[in-house]
Amino acid sequence: MNRRDILAGSIAGVSAAATLAAAGAASAQTAATELRWRMTSSYPASLDAVYGAGEIFIQVLGELSQGRMQIQHFASGEIVGGLQALDAVQNGTVECCDTSPFYYVGKDPAFTFGSAMPFGLTTRQQNSWLFQAGGLNLLNELFGRYNVFGLPIGNTNAQMAGWFRKEIKSVEDLRGLKMRVGGLAGRIVAKLGVVPQQIAAGDIYPALERGAIDAAEWVGPYDDERLGLYKIAPYYYYPGWWEASSTIFLLINKGRWDALTPFDQALMRVAAQDAMTLTIAKYDQLNSVAIRRLVAGGAQLRSFPQDVMDACYKSANEVFAEIGGENEMFKRLHDHLTGFRNEQNLWHQIAEYSYQTFMIRSRKL
Amino acid sequence: MNRRDILAGSIAGVSAAATLAAAGAASAQTAATELRWRMTSSYPASLDAVYGAGEIFIQVLGELSQGRMQIQHFASGEIVGGLQALDAVQNGTVECCDTSPFYYVGKDPAFTFGSAMPFGLTTRQQNSWLFQAGGLNLLNELFGRYNVFGLPIGNTNAQMAGWFRKEIKSVEDLRGLKMRVGGLAGRIVAKLGVVPQQIAAGDIYPALERGAIDAAEWVGPYDDERLGLYKIAPYYYYPGWWEASSTIFLLINKGRWDALTPFDQALMRVAAQDAMTLTIAKYDQLNSVAIRRLVAGGAQLRSFPQDVMDACYKSANEVFAEIGGENEMFKRLHDHLTGFRNEQNLWHQIAEYSYQTFMIRSRKL
Repeated sequence: MNRRDILAGSIAGVSAAATLAAAGAASAQTAATELRWRMTSSYPASLDAVYGAGEIFIQVLGELSQGRMQIQHFASGEIVGGLQALDAVQNGTVECCDTSPFYYVGKDPAFTFGSAMPFGLTTRQQNSWLFQAGGLNLLNELFGRYNVFGLPIGNTNAQMAGWFRKEIKSVEDLRGLKMRVGGLAGRIVAKLGVVPQQIAAGDIYPALERGAIDAAEWVGPYDDERLGLYKIAPYYYYPGWWEASSTIFLLINKGRWDALTPFDQALMRVAAQDAMTLTIAKYDQLNSVAIRRLVAGGAQLRSFPQDVMDACYKSANEVFAEIGGENEMFKRLHDHLTGFRNEQNLWHQIAEYSYQTFMIRSRKL
Repeated sequence: MNRRDILAGSIAGVSAAATLAAAGAASAQTAATELRWRMTSSYPASLDAVYGAGEIFIQVLGELSQGRMQIQHFASGEIVGGLQALDAVQNGTVECCDTSPFYYVGKDPAFTFGSAMPFGLTTRQQNSWLFQAGGLNLLNELFGRYNVFGLPIGNTNAQMAGWFRKEIKSVEDLRGLKMRVGGLAGRIVAKLGVVPQQIAAGDIYPALERGAIDAAEWVGPYDDERLGLYKIAPYYYYPGWWEASSTIFLLINKGRWDALTPFDQALMRVAAQDAMTLTIAKYDQLNSVAIRRLVAGGAQLRSFPQDVMDACYKSANEVFAEIGGENEMFKRLHDHLTGFRNEQNLWHQIAEYSYQTFMIRSRKL
């Protein structure tokens, strides 16, 4: 084998760069186009970690384009409400939004896969599904029907199941429980007798305090700490099986995305990846510190009993079958993600989970 | 609160972009400088996943710079041997390399933290430590002493403990075992009677076949499959506690790095983040497929018995104390990473590990 053969891989890499250079020169006129967009957020700026994913994206994009591409970020409610973000992008009121796609399960239940399928993937599995297994392409097929193109920009990592005024000792305790829980999770627990409630973040505390609801899920320790719920609903349950990870998406008006040069699209894709890596890293660090403060402040950690987990899992699979029977896109995404999940859990169980088991046990020694 | 106050966060973001635009304009002359570098790899091109991290970095950098920044990738042995990569960058023979820093524990044991501390962090924890908790800055303090600057470009994720000709049923079975295992892991298991061997990848199979060694660790299912060891050493052990994750680093000659414009440094940093995200996603998918093929081909999965894990953990902590007593940088990195690890394991244990436990059990039902 001569040197040229040995270097074939490398030469291919350099050729790609050269091709890109030519493409870059060809698009030099358009590449100089200034971009001034508005991004409406589904989150309040006070939730600085989740809102921060969009902030990082904007900053990095400005940096990569040397200030040529500038996006102004508007908190939830500034232009439109947090749950109207998709509408605003779809109809062109704004060019893009940072949001959790499962806020739109009312439009199409398949949007859940853009954030988290209940009993779905961990953060690393979700990213492998998105970037390596074709998940992102499938999602963009869905998003395209709503005139938007999606780039993942972060993940909250595994969430908690929320705050409960009373302990849940068996599946019987779910009957009649009024709980703030949305999306497909609400539909899943409704089968077990929970009465799901839709309540905005700012109204959760008073609703729990006056007994209008018995429980409320929000995000994880760092974000939950802001709401102060441990004072009135001290039982802090896990795991949050409806969001074992939760992807934060940038959704861009499709016409606007398609009109970008390939170069500008590449800058956006790479800025999104940077926001993804940094947001995941940030949430892990912030949550580990916040959980200690919450427990010191009175939060009482509780895991769901096995029968509750089993009943929820069974109920979830029933709901998936019901929706999948009438929604082809939902079924395609569900089957794709579930097949991937089962293979991933087989592998993760061997090398990483067994390691974590040892380390968690050793920590207690 | 008026609109300006509400938007304070967003305005700060836009101002940063504007500042960067000004900086970009100021550096317009230098930004036009062509960059032609050589990158020597510690890996053969045939290990396409780990070698691929550098490939992605090069391709994305070419894309972000529109071909202005081109790096040519040389496989291990093309310019210098895989373990001479740091030397070649340090003395300026090449501008950069893609490598595993713990190959250089002979120069300084603190290099282990650039890849993996035995009984260290999982991939997500390692990235949180690097990007959020200050780990990368600490590492660059170490790297600076060797005239290089480091950017993480990928991770192999949790590794396996390798291939054994006979089962390991207790810590007694380690006595006299001739095993290909390097770095600090070799020193740790030597305390338990293992005789560590340094053998290049291509020589492992014949050494095992003729009985010159009894066991060999390599990477994980996808990379291990290439070596075909399951045919002669069928017991495939886990967890690979010396690499619960293993960071792949781009090391750049410090003079070259410092001479780059801030803009070009930013392009490199962001290209590295993209390679990181994609390489992690790739390894998870490839390993899940490879483990099935290996088991179908005759590999027999075995987990280390509890007494072996306990003895290795104890031995590792002794080695860390010995080295830390005479190496201040090692001690600083060890204490920093270990403190972070303990907080992370507390948090991961609650939301994510409990979820994975349920999903792994449910998979078997």
